[in-house]
Amino acid sequence: MSPARIDEGCERGYIVPVGGAEDKVGSASILRRFVEVSGGDGARIAIIPTASSLDDTGARYQRIFLDRGASEASVLPWINRADTTRQDWLAILDNATGVFLTGGNQLRISSILGGTPVAKAIRRLNARGVTVGGTSAGAAVLSEHMIAYGDDGGTPRAGAATLAPGLGMTNRVVIDQHFRQRDRLGRLLTALAYNPFAIGLGLDEDAAAFIGPDERITVVGSGAITVVDAAALEHSSIASTEVGQPVCMTGIRVHILVAGASFDLHRREARPPDAAPQRKG
Amino acid sequence: MSPARIDEGCERGYIVPVGGAEDKVGSASILRRFVEVSGGDGARIAIIPTASSLDDTGARYQRIFLDRGASEASVLPWINRADTTRQDWLAILDNATGVFLTGGNQLRISSILGGTPVAKAIRRLNARGVTVGGTSAGAAVLSEHMIAYGDDGGTPRAGAATLAPGLGMTNRVVIDQHFRQRDRLGRLLTALAYNPFAIGLGLDEDAAAFIGPDERITVVGSGAITVVDAAALEHSSIASTEVGQPVCMTGIRVHILVAGASFDLHRREARPPDAAPQRKG
Repeated sequence: MSPARIDEGCERGYIVPVGGAEDKVGSASILRRFVEVSGGDGARIAIIPTASSLDDTGARYQRIFLDRGASEASVLPWINRADTTRQDWLAILDNATGVFLTGGNQLRISSILGGTPVAKAIRRLNARGVTVGGTSAGAAVLSEHMIAYGDDGGTPRAGAATLAPGLGMTNRVVIDQHFRQRDRLGRLLTALAYNPFAIGLGLDEDAAAFIGPDERITVVGSGAITVVDAAALEHSSIASTEVGQPVCMTGIRVHILVAGASFDLHRREARPPDAAPQRKG
Repeated sequence: MSPARIDEGCERGYIVPVGGAEDKVGSASILRRFVEVSGGDGARIAIIPTASSLDDTGARYQRIFLDRGASEASVLPWINRADTTRQDWLAILDNATGVFLTGGNQLRISSILGGTPVAKAIRRLNARGVTVGGTSAGAAVLSEHMIAYGDDGGTPRAGAATLAPGLGMTNRVVIDQHFRQRDRLGRLLTALAYNPFAIGLGLDEDAAAFIGPDERITVVGSGAITVVDAAALEHSSIASTEVGQPVCMTGIRVHILVAGASFDLHRREARPPDAAPQRKG
């Protein structure tokens, strides 16, 4: 499920993974910004609560998005594969300017929507400029390579991360969420040890990565994002390490980014938040 | 590591996963056909023994390919990441008409070559028409989603397959090898339960899938290929099943294909070996 091809003259929409537990009652900086990059007061948000097993998850986000200025917010409650050909829901999806996947279990999203017209439509929408984001499980599934299961802890261990195919909006990153809260550096490093081509994004709660069409990530929210870049990895013992044992990895670059900081996925360069403008005289 | 973009007017080369233990001394139908689709007596084969920890693996294939009519066969023994920028080896790779990855451990290939100029070059070569294949570990790694670890047995179980990013020549299939010999239907089904978008290819020993530029797979060798198509999956319990427990899956289509049979990845249609031409009255 690679990213859909982007037509000549178009650019893809924002991709917005959120680390979970984003603020909903205070400044709600992440969800507010999500509405902005989805068209502001013209935004039509399609909410997909497939990850959740709670009935009111979609309705809750519907209220929040309408309160934060979206003109429309519709819940599309796909909870089984048979419904994924429902034309009325697909029509609402196709008319959206922003798509938001709620939290829950990422395997519900990939196993219910994978290979269906819904998954294809979401990728096509993003390729033609529509913002696609999600929180927690909804964040994990945005990438081509999604962490489905994993062990907690700070040390990479062979087999400590089980990847599965996600919705494939991008394959440049592997996303992990509730990152500091659940001590997940080890499983993210394990995922990169398997194949160091991707960038690891460890998203704390109330932290979001707004990945622009220019492949620049900007951080929003009160939490931090841990960017793990294994491109310069010199050595990894993953192939000779028994499952469950710690993996030796040398030459990893790490950046801890907070609100306003950014990271260029092309150049693999981090930039701190812009310094305050110099006062004249 | 998605497939490289194919230029206007070009078509990609064959992708050739082999299930391992292919015949090397008898008719060697698979390796012979590999030379044919790499240019026949003009074939220049680059052999990448990165998966193997044995010193003579590359040299052994070099002899076989030369015996089977290739004009050149070069071993490029990348065994650490530091060597992946060696220009002399990259030049030989770039001049190849066929690339062959040997068996061993697929995590050696992905962890040593992932994100390096070698991995990028292999994808670019395939996109411009060069055949890329491999046996056993070298087969597993050809796809975007590669089975890195897994449990044996016929039943899918949550967590029984650990996927990792492969070299990404295609993302339409998930490949498993030594399929019947190691009883791997369960882990292949598990991989598809995570996300049913892909086609599962279970390759027996001495069986190869020649995936043509038209996305048609033709079977070569004495073994069989088990094609598992989960596109019409009605239900999977993967998201609610505890790790290690069996997964309920309904609506899977399976085809068992032998030499000469084919499968169209676009249409998801299997075809038996062509019937003998009708004798005229």
